Amino acid sequence: MKLKNLVGQRFKEKPADCVVDSHALMIRGGYMKNVANGIYSEYPVLRRITSKIEQIIRKEMDAIDGQEVMFPVVMPADLWMESGRYTSIGSEMGRFSDRNGTKMVLGMTHEEAAVQLVREYAKSYQLYPFMIYQIQRKFRDEARPRAGMIRVREFTMKDAYSFHTSIEDLQDYYQKCYDAYHRIYKNVGVPEVIAVASDSGMMGGSLSHEFMLLTDIGEDSIVVCKECDYRANMEAAETLIKTEKREDKMSSVAEHGLESLSCVETPDCKTIEDVCAYLKSKVENSCKAVVYQKNSDDTFIVAFVRGDYEVNETKLRNLVGEDIHAAVIDADAPLVAGYIGPYQISNQVLVYFDVSLQGIDRLVAGANKEGYHYVGLNLDREIGNINYVDISKVKEGGICPCCKKNSLMIKRGIEVGNIFQLGTKYTKSMNMQYVDKEGENHYPYMGCYGIGVGRLAASVCEAKHDEFGPIWPITIAPWEVHLCCLRVDDPLTKQTADELYQKFMAQGIEVIYDDREKVRPGEMFSDADLLGVPIRVIVSPRNLKENKIEIKTRDKSVDDKVDVKDALSYTIKLKEQLYSKICN
Amino acid sequence: MKLKNLVGQRFKEKPADCVVDSHALMIRGGYMKNVANGIYSEYPVLRRITSKIEQIIRKEMDAIDGQEVMFPVVMPADLWMESGRYTSIGSEMGRFSDRNGTKMVLGMTHEEAAVQLVREYAKSYQLYPFMIYQIQRKFRDEARPRAGMIRVREFTMKDAYSFHTSIEDLQDYYQKCYDAYHRIYKNVGVPEVIAVASDSGMMGGSLSHEFMLLTDIGEDSIVVCKECDYRANMEAAETLIKTEKREDKMSSVAEHGLESLSCVETPDCKTIEDVCAYLKSKVENSCKAVVYQKNSDDTFIVAFVRGDYEVNETKLRNLVGEDIHAAVIDADAPLVAGYIGPYQISNQVLVYFDVSLQGIDRLVAGANKEGYHYVGLNLDREIGNINYVDISKVKEGGICPCCKKNSLMIKRGIEVGNIFQLGTKYTKSMNMQYVDKEGENHYPYMGCYGIGVGRLAASVCEAKHDEFGPIWPITIAPWEVHLCCLRVDDPLTKQTADELYQKFMAQGIEVIYDDREKVRPGEMFSDADLLGVPIRVIVSPRNLKENKIEIKTRDKSVDDKVDVKDALSYTIKLKEQLYSKICN
Repeated sequence: MKLKNLVGQRFKEKPADCVVDSHALMIRGGYMKNVANGIYSEYPVLRRITSKIEQIIRKEMDAIDGQEVMFPVVMPADLWMESGRYTSIGSEMGRFSDRNGTKMVLGMTHEEAAVQLVREYAKSYQLYPFMIYQIQRKFRDEARPRAGMIRVREFTMKDAYSFHTSIEDLQDYYQKCYDAYHRIYKNVGVPEVIAVASDSGMMGGSLSHEFMLLTDIGEDSIVVCKECDYRANMEAAETLIKTEKREDKMSSVAEHGLESLSCVETPDCKTIEDVCAYLKSKVENSCKAVVYQKNSDDTFIVAFVRGDYEVNETKLRNLVGEDIHAAVIDADAPLVAGYIGPYQISNQVLVYFDVSLQGIDRLVAGANKEGYHYVGLNLDREIGNINYVDISKVKEGGICPCCKKNSLMIKRGIEVGNIFQLGTKYTKSMNMQYVDKEGENHYPYMGCYGIGVGRLAASVCEAKHDEFGPIWPITIAPWEVHLCCLRVDDPLTKQTADELYQKFMAQGIEVIYDDREKVRPGEMFSDADLLGVPIRVIVSPRNLKENKIEIKTRDKSVDDKVDVKDALSYTIKLKEQLYSKICN
Repeated sequence: MKLKNLVGQRFKEKPADCVVDSHALMIRGGYMKNVANGIYSEYPVLRRITSKIEQIIRKEMDAIDGQEVMFPVVMPADLWMESGRYTSIGSEMGRFSDRNGTKMVLGMTHEEAAVQLVREYAKSYQLYPFMIYQIQRKFRDEARPRAGMIRVREFTMKDAYSFHTSIEDLQDYYQKCYDAYHRIYKNVGVPEVIAVASDSGMMGGSLSHEFMLLTDIGEDSIVVCKECDYRANMEAAETLIKTEKREDKMSSVAEHGLESLSCVETPDCKTIEDVCAYLKSKVENSCKAVVYQKNSDDTFIVAFVRGDYEVNETKLRNLVGEDIHAAVIDADAPLVAGYIGPYQISNQVLVYFDVSLQGIDRLVAGANKEGYHYVGLNLDREIGNINYVDISKVKEGGICPCCKKNSLMIKRGIEVGNIFQLGTKYTKSMNMQYVDKEGENHYPYMGCYGIGVGRLAASVCEAKHDEFGPIWPITIAPWEVHLCCLRVDDPLTKQTADELYQKFMAQGIEVIYDDREKVRPGEMFSDADLLGVPIRVIVSPRNLKENKIEIKTRDKSVDDKVDVKDALSYTIKLKEQLYSKICN
């Protein structure tokens, strides 16, 4: 098509509210427009990209025997009450009542709809396994939409659901889907996406993976081992503490005896750092308290970690078994804010001890008394019988749970997909059963597999761009060729460019043709940069004098002048090369 | 794919709650599943059909220079307040508040979103005309969902919006879209769809057309002239009353003088039919009152029509200029229910006189007094200065507004698309302006163009089916070929069928292969009938004895036995014939 007809404006100025490059470039390039906080319309350029991504995903889902279906966006709350998620999910779910007062929800994921669709169909073991998927809009009322298409409230998602008669069969299929996901990322041009073990959060079930595109602007932290293949997200990464260190301490304890417990005044010391500085003690020898409350009944939960560690809220939530929030400690609370410690703490609160505290003989800790801390606290002596649990965040340089070296790195990444082994969570709660060979009833096992289309587009942009615009991989580029006619007022230039345009279209090449009048070359090129089309063909009077046409790639790897008569064949060859580089 | 893997169950029994054939067959065939009242999930069979319809629509929209975009399902109420539709549309719009209390709506149509997307872009006349479209889910909280996919609350719709700098340009484009719509219906296999002039209802604007598939189960009434090309829906069809008849009456009046007005007792006569029977008067000589109220302030509106005519509520609503509802006449009302007449009616009510009453000299009409009617009422004499308006329904055998013959027929139809010339309704209310050549500001003209995808699928089924199942046109059929292996336990039969399956797939033929064990031929065929695939290829031991394979079409127009070696080429040829019959 002709660029002058393309709906969507491009501009030079960086928009004020964009904190990541992909967001700024996609706004500047006329890819999308904000409709409400975290809600966008897609202009034709972006829609062409998302359509191509959808087709790539569709192809891979079909290749692993997926069958495309369509679930509704609006579902009755009843269905979500069956699974229990109507109450377990909070304000991120869109809810309304229809004209008859029936409670409805907006689909943010479709496990319930998937089970509802197949539970009468799949009553015999002979019909298993199978996988159904859709590509559909979802609404999630995110508290903090950010970074353009990276974290939005409404988005197009491919969500797939598989059903199995055994865990082994689920695991086999899960691996197939894992492999298909890697093919998808490769085919959209980001083969560098890695899979990391993850916590499965609200989806339920056990094993799950997130697919991460590593980038500094990512909002997720990923634990990557530099010595082995270990990758996990922060929630799933186990915190290991060196046992040698502990034995060393223990032997020193055996030698010198345990220092006795004493309560000391610590005026104006509200943080563990204040206290340690005041007492001239190491932060590594302190016991920090972080306080939460259950969402259900506001019961207080105190998580104790070593002073130099942080609590990982998801790990803690999984242990508690229900949703929690940061505590509000008021005058009635059975806790003394700033002075909370494990010894003689109120028995009205739930207490968890992190593994980082295990075996430390002399701790500094709050005394549960305004203005006082204990020193010389020994948890095993003073409290005893402690079940240490893993509720702390892994640290840079921490011990790899796989190769046991101090080789962990913390990286930032964007989650561009996730897969879950759900087990029987939904089939049990929604009473979906099948009859096996022997006539016995069982709950099938489920897996679910998601990819957000718009986020993937923005992530590719984030990974592939320069200061002037995106550098789209040819497989998802809005067009394959960007044809510029530099001087429309020059008859030969115009005629040559027009002819090329016709030839490209006749060859089935997707081409955007810039034949705007009175537009300077600089503006043409900066517009072309913003559109990020991989091959650029430039027809100009200067080159035509030598009977040449300039052909270059957006990533600057190719910059050639070819004879006019060879321009078509050269472009076709270059196009094929670009495809084969990605889909080799 | 293999039929045994296809998700979705088929069954023989007609579901109890299905009143139209397409609904029953699509439930029985495993096409869709009810999730809530008027909300369905699509099984793979239907999703394959809707995907093909979407592609056919997309192709035609692209051919008239449409650019595909994507608007959100969830929009801020603010946007709908700008256009005024947040208040003018009632409970059919889904509304909710997000986590921050911001009012949101679910898109039931996207004029507001379209204007929002382009109003900053299209500021110069040089960027016009253009058309943007999307294929996207919509939610409309219909009061009475019915007939399966025919009238639902959530559906996939192609909605397009064009923008122009003159009415003429809008009209030109409107015609292009009109033609594209006819190509779409032809390509999905229902060339018999007709365009009818329509009332544009809540969309605003003036000229509009509905595309109607005529069928007895249709919920819309269409006025069709059997003598000329006139077609309109009931709202748009002008009611013409024979002037000869009136002149005849008038001359009789001139001859005999007007009968004088008298008030007579009409005990227990609550309807106009009762009154006329009691007074031995013709219904054609009576004046019937139908009472409504404004939604805004409950003002009473009395519509007077000749006794043998009915009020068309939409015509009346358009005259009133706002939403109305059937009146509730209580004791405080300035009206005497059952005895409402035009003479001496309360001046607190709005009164409309239909053209059917024009020129009738002696009318029976209510006396606005319990138990009494007037006879000998002459509107022009008793009231005078009456502005007769068209608020009545056209009748079978009525006068065609085009050829003026008594040739109108009333048909039933399903609306499978609509197009509107919106004018500047939305661009004005939402302040979208462009600058013309002379530097002056103007509001652009808009058109909008919709097709419901699921409803179109169901309508095709309604038009093309027999008692055993749908007869899908090959262009939208879930598969092109249905291959049946009648005796899987017979090695030669199985091998021949397997080989054909492989050959079909290698040739890019979309094939569903039924190689189920222990399934009788009768069940295979009734399943095939329910899937409605146009070409059926049957491999059986009996025919193989003669080295033959049976090939037939679902519509029974072809039923051949061909040599095994010719089966592939025969099928390819038959497939091409079926395509060319539709897309000639």
